[in-house]
Amino acid sequence: MTTILSPELIASFIDIVGSGHALSSPAETAPYLVESRGLYHGTTPLVLRPGSVEEVSRIMRLASQTRTAIVPQGGNTGHVAGQIPREGKADMVLSLERLNRIRDVDPVGNVIVADAGCILADVQKAADDAGRLFPLSLGSEGSARIGGNLSTNAGGTAVLAYGNMRQLCLGLEVVLPTGEIWDGLRRLKKDNTGYDLRDLFIGAEGTLGVITGAVLKLFPKPLGHQVAFAGLRSVEDALALFDRASTLCGPALTGFELMPRIGIEFTSRHIPGVRDPMPTVHPWYALIDISTSDSAESAERMIEGVLETGVSNGLVENAIIATSETQRKALWHMRESMSPAQKPEGGSIKHDVSVPVSNIPAFMAEADTAVMKAIPGARICAFGHMGDGNIHYNISQPVGADKQVFLDRWREMNAIVHGIVLKYRGSISAEHGIGQLKRDELAEIRPEIEIELMQRIKHAFDPAGIMNPDKVLRTRSM
Amino acid sequence: MTTILSPELIASFIDIVGSGHALSSPAETAPYLVESRGLYHGTTPLVLRPGSVEEVSRIMRLASQTRTAIVPQGGNTGHVAGQIPREGKADMVLSLERLNRIRDVDPVGNVIVADAGCILADVQKAADDAGRLFPLSLGSEGSARIGGNLSTNAGGTAVLAYGNMRQLCLGLEVVLPTGEIWDGLRRLKKDNTGYDLRDLFIGAEGTLGVITGAVLKLFPKPLGHQVAFAGLRSVEDALALFDRASTLCGPALTGFELMPRIGIEFTSRHIPGVRDPMPTVHPWYALIDISTSDSAESAERMIEGVLETGVSNGLVENAIIATSETQRKALWHMRESMSPAQKPEGGSIKHDVSVPVSNIPAFMAEADTAVMKAIPGARICAFGHMGDGNIHYNISQPVGADKQVFLDRWREMNAIVHGIVLKYRGSISAEHGIGQLKRDELAEIRPEIEIELMQRIKHAFDPAGIMNPDKVLRTRSM
Repeated sequence: MTTILSPELIASFIDIVGSGHALSSPAETAPYLVESRGLYHGTTPLVLRPGSVEEVSRIMRLASQTRTAIVPQGGNTGHVAGQIPREGKADMVLSLERLNRIRDVDPVGNVIVADAGCILADVQKAADDAGRLFPLSLGSEGSARIGGNLSTNAGGTAVLAYGNMRQLCLGLEVVLPTGEIWDGLRRLKKDNTGYDLRDLFIGAEGTLGVITGAVLKLFPKPLGHQVAFAGLRSVEDALALFDRASTLCGPALTGFELMPRIGIEFTSRHIPGVRDPMPTVHPWYALIDISTSDSAESAERMIEGVLETGVSNGLVENAIIATSETQRKALWHMRESMSPAQKPEGGSIKHDVSVPVSNIPAFMAEADTAVMKAIPGARICAFGHMGDGNIHYNISQPVGADKQVFLDRWREMNAIVHGIVLKYRGSISAEHGIGQLKRDELAEIRPEIEIELMQRIKHAFDPAGIMNPDKVLRTRSM
Repeated sequence: MTTILSPELIASFIDIVGSGHALSSPAETAPYLVESRGLYHGTTPLVLRPGSVEEVSRIMRLASQTRTAIVPQGGNTGHVAGQIPREGKADMVLSLERLNRIRDVDPVGNVIVADAGCILADVQKAADDAGRLFPLSLGSEGSARIGGNLSTNAGGTAVLAYGNMRQLCLGLEVVLPTGEIWDGLRRLKKDNTGYDLRDLFIGAEGTLGVITGAVLKLFPKPLGHQVAFAGLRSVEDALALFDRASTLCGPALTGFELMPRIGIEFTSRHIPGVRDPMPTVHPWYALIDISTSDSAESAERMIEGVLETGVSNGLVENAIIATSETQRKALWHMRESMSPAQKPEGGSIKHDVSVPVSNIPAFMAEADTAVMKAIPGARICAFGHMGDGNIHYNISQPVGADKQVFLDRWREMNAIVHGIVLKYRGSISAEHGIGQLKRDELAEIRPEIEIELMQRIKHAFDPAGIMNPDKVLRTRSM
């Protein structure tokens, strides 16, 4: 059953942004209605592309008066369909892409103030131009937008040293479901004045309001940067090496990424320019990234120290240190190609999970056994941010299997893998969020009181249930 | 008008904890009813000292059924009377002091799980015994308790490198106003599964629930530790020195504390064992603390590097580097005595404020002018965590002035100083919280919609208004 909005109401929404910025033809709206993996296809009467915070506010005010559902969208790179309108409803898409101005860069105060629609790479570049670092970094940074990064509390590859988006944000500007604007654009490192509204909007996936601007932290650019690639015997050895590396390097350890042999094979096979950087073959690999602020030499000393202790303790079978920025980028490119390299291998059932860091080897062993029992011949390509306890536990189909038959077992495999995750009190969504994909599962696995508290917060902020309905939680009203 | 509870109800509460753990005589309850500065005196029919989370739950269930107000209290070291029951009401005090068990220390997973009633120093010690560092450090750490540290999002002296309590906490256990227990004791570094309940309870000052346990982060112990003390010409020079130090040291800069000459005089005069460590006299001083994980030598290199660049750029007039742990402790002891050293000098009107770091010199100059105009002869002792933008802007009475007459101008001076803080979009409570002291002021200075959102959150969690009423916000119901 499709909800239909009146032509008058649609015209009123179009009036707010101007007809040039309201899209309604299927050809125009199509890119906003499907997420990157193609698992969800939404429908919408209209994609609104406001050009100012004031226009966002007017859209929300009208939506609130008329009980029209609004789905905020940034770069449409999300993996859980939080940004995709529901199918068969009349959800309007509110694209933030025209709100893409860097409002201020203050290198002395170490902050940048950006519209929510700024592309992450553009924020990185503006920081770099001012002699500073904005450390959030992830595969989709060329198209992901700041508002989406905030709404999903994005993680990425530098969380180990700098934290995820929640730790990188000092202040927010949010348009509430009523259209009111909350100006929380503070630049303060410390501010204990009441409830933490900022962190409530961060990670709420656009269900409590529309983030329109943010104050983000900048950092001094590191003077030293080293990247090593180490061949390892086991996940246990990877954990032991991580432990030594983090003790030795402290916050200078900016990345510790785990990769399996099959991931190196997939990327070498399918990603142009990627080749196995080592002549020897190992079951596991670690990419170790070190950044130092005091000197280039200290990063050299540290990376050598990590590898030396790894070799002398029998943890590292072989290792290379990148000797140029080109080599460093090539190693990171290989790591970031792990996910796309699975596509040409057929269907891939994905899990974005975390467990306490010390439980990673046990979790992996149990999950591997259970998955191989359920689908003999499945090719497990589990990689990720070992230092954060965050594994992208992906399963490629057996060679020659039917893709759709394999993908039809998505929920079943989720139940198996997530069951083991929960045994270790882990998370079924470490960094991608809940959206539509994991909404019902979240309600099942969490204590009733936790879902109840979230529902009460949702109701307190959005009593009419118009703000990105049925994402994260099944919306009660409407 | 004093509210009176029925003897039957009081007996039911006593039954839950046992008569040995329910205090009612004025002599017994007195220590729970006055905060450290003596500004607030509360009244209570009963101080309940539960011995288990289950007892806390039963207390809250009964309180919720009978609409009895409950005030959670930890070490009673708070500065804004958030932990003190209201005067003339029948608020029961719920002391967490018997819930003081370290539940688990996991040095491999780098977490410690502690009851909310654990004393901060005991948590530091348990971490130390396991070869790890729990970095939260503040003047009252010998009596402040973890639940209070969490409920006020405590800061302290190591925020620069490690963040405040919100950044140090991975998971919480909370007894809700209804008595239900939320088990959010997760040990995960990344977990994007719905609204951030944890950060909502942190900093809520016990108005949304009673924190009973927490998972806290541990860190490797630094190998290198250096502390320097530098004499400076001005706050501008201090800011320039901080900027160079943070660029050079990155996250190894664990403290950068600003102190005025008068603070050195006060501490030398009144605090046993404290003496001015330098033969020369300077208008301002910085205490610079550096911790390094890779080696002891790198801390030495860094502290020398900071002072060299400071001297060669004319920012540092004179400096000493502590050469032993005893000397390092002595310098920190002087810094931590800044506040107590003001007491023997008569009345002191205090402000715990923050501004964007780069605005500190301008803020200080304007505030000084305004204060000296209002109270000629006032002695401004403004010190604090420069790197966090957090200044304890304290004003000691003029020599020979009447203490009470001076203290009667508390609100007036607040208005002056906070007015300038707000001009720089700063915070009127950087680390101490709101409690009763700043509640009405918060409502005045913040946008109406912000207070309204907080009220709605309060109502969603505590519809009966029994949970630490009239703290942070004026409670609407009851």
